[in-house]
Amino acid sequence: MSTVYVVGLGPGAGEQMTVRAEKILEACPVILGYTVYIDLVREQYPEKKFLSTPMKQEVKRCQMAFEEAVKGQDVAMVCSGDAGVYGMAGLIYEVGREYPEIKIEIIPGITAATGGAAVLGAPLMHDFAVISLSDLLTPWEQIEERLEAAAKAGFVICLYNPSSKKRADYLQKACDIFLKYRRPDTICGFVKNIGREGETYQILPLEILRETAVDMFTTVYIGTEKTMELNGKMVTPRGYREMKKEKA
Amino acid sequence: MSTVYVVGLGPGAGEQMTVRAEKILEACPVILGYTVYIDLVREQYPEKKFLSTPMKQEVKRCQMAFEEAVKGQDVAMVCSGDAGVYGMAGLIYEVGREYPEIKIEIIPGITAATGGAAVLGAPLMHDFAVISLSDLLTPWEQIEERLEAAAKAGFVICLYNPSSKKRADYLQKACDIFLKYRRPDTICGFVKNIGREGETYQILPLEILRETAVDMFTTVYIGTEKTMELNGKMVTPRGYREMKKEKA
Ligand SMILES: C[S@@+](CC[C@H](N)C(=O)[O-])C[C@H]1O[C@@H](n2cnc3c(N)ncnc32)[C@H](O)[C@@H]1O
Ligand SMILES: C[S@@+](CC[C@H](N)C(=O)[O-])C[C@H]1O[C@@H](n2cnc3c(N)ncnc32)[C@H](O)[C@@H]1O
Repeated sequence: MSTVYVVGLGPGAGEQMTVRAEKILEACPVILGYTVYIDLVREQYPEKKFLSTPMKQEVKRCQMAFEEAVKGQDVAMVCSGDAGVYGMAGLIYEVGREYPEIKIEIIPGITAATGGAAVLGAPLMHDFAVISLSDLLTPWEQIEERLEAAAKAGFVICLYNPSSKKRADYLQKACDIFLKYRRPDTICGFVKNIGREGETYQILPLEILRETAVDMFTTVYIGTEKTMELNGKMVTPRGYREMKKEKA
Repeated sequence: MSTVYVVGLGPGAGEQMTVRAEKILEACPVILGYTVYIDLVREQYPEKKFLSTPMKQEVKRCQMAFEEAVKGQDVAMVCSGDAGVYGMAGLIYEVGREYPEIKIEIIPGITAATGGAAVLGAPLMHDFAVISLSDLLTPWEQIEERLEAAAKAGFVICLYNPSSKKRADYLQKACDIFLKYRRPDTICGFVKNIGREGETYQILPLEILRETAVDMFTTVYIGTEKTMELNGKMVTPRGYREMKKEKA
């Protein structure tokens, strides 16, 4: 029985892949994915069969994966980050209903939220909410409701898909919601091209983030009232120190 | 200048570590951490200096890391999962203020949320909230507020620290909150010992989860109204299929 593996490459592939993901890619004769991610791994495995599809052909890409597996070979479908976070994991199970003879296995990867957090320092630490600003699959009103709920309940907030040509002002709109619940000088941050060439980050107050343009290869972090800038890093203390003091 | 690396081992170390994490462990002469995680890597590197501290001595462990680094050697402090998610990353920056000559670098790892999600299938997919049920560092009222906010705003919810001897009924209390906003048959799941010996998972309706005891080595997932069980897996569809149909 063949298997379709859905492999998270981490934010930048290469060294950020897990050992397991690397072994799966080595073992699968067919590797398939969105063009950009295929290019990230193609050089490493020149002898394999590579299949790529452009964006917005997600169903077709899943079908291709199963069609290759039906021929009796294992297939690795690659995704950036983790396939279960705004990735292809869910769709593979849905399309897989039509291919009951093919096994499906998800190989987790570092998702942008934690990959970017490591670049910024330690912004998450506490309870956090991951929200996509893309309204392609979720109505904007629902996104706003989630931004509002997360801001109000004191979550650290991590934003995926913070921008695109059509949604240039969405981050600004999101910041306006956060400003209802958090101080203008709340420490925020963003990381562009996590784990890739041109990786950069910035730590800035919420009111300045509101005026800042970021692109779609960026993940954004909204701190809580406790989040601070420490030696150029964004840190949300978890409270061990207070605990220690209490006990001492 | 020496560096303290805070290295996320992933939920089960071994193959779930990133290639980068593995390289850092190989390069550092001193490896330090909570006893259980040290045991996970000790066999692999018999020639190194290992330092371990029991739980609840987090500040001391960070100080030990810097004291070793001050001697002129790189130190790897290991954590399960990702060091930035209920881990040691924040505290290292705080303690690090007293050691300005030592560099700090966070090496991300697969966190339980995405590691467990891959075992269950594809439960996250949409916007999700990560919440710890431990009231050691957060007052229970605030945890309840976050559970409530996340349930109401339609997040998939991922629970860390769902249980301990002192908090045997916290998961039940959390489920009671979810039941205010979600149907009793909402698909939920949990994974015990992700990536470790004895890894098991279960998919079950919210009302049954409420009656189920889980231990502290478990991560719990609360689905949304769209989450379904598909061939024994927990899948939250993202909506590509609907999008496809709309466009066709
Ligand atoms: C469709 S989602 C895919 C997320 C991916 N599956 C993951 O787990 O990271 C795309 C969004 O993820 C974030 N992202 C993914 N890779 C990134 C990287 N290398 N650097 C910065 N942000 C990234 C950005 O917010 C981007 O708009
Ligand atoms: C103090 S937190 C540490 C989290 C860790 N830093 C991470 O990123 O996964 C401990 C909680 O994480 C979850 N967890 C960590 N490792 C796990 C594993 N291997 N299997 C199941 N749950 C795990 C459990 O909910 C546990 O109570």
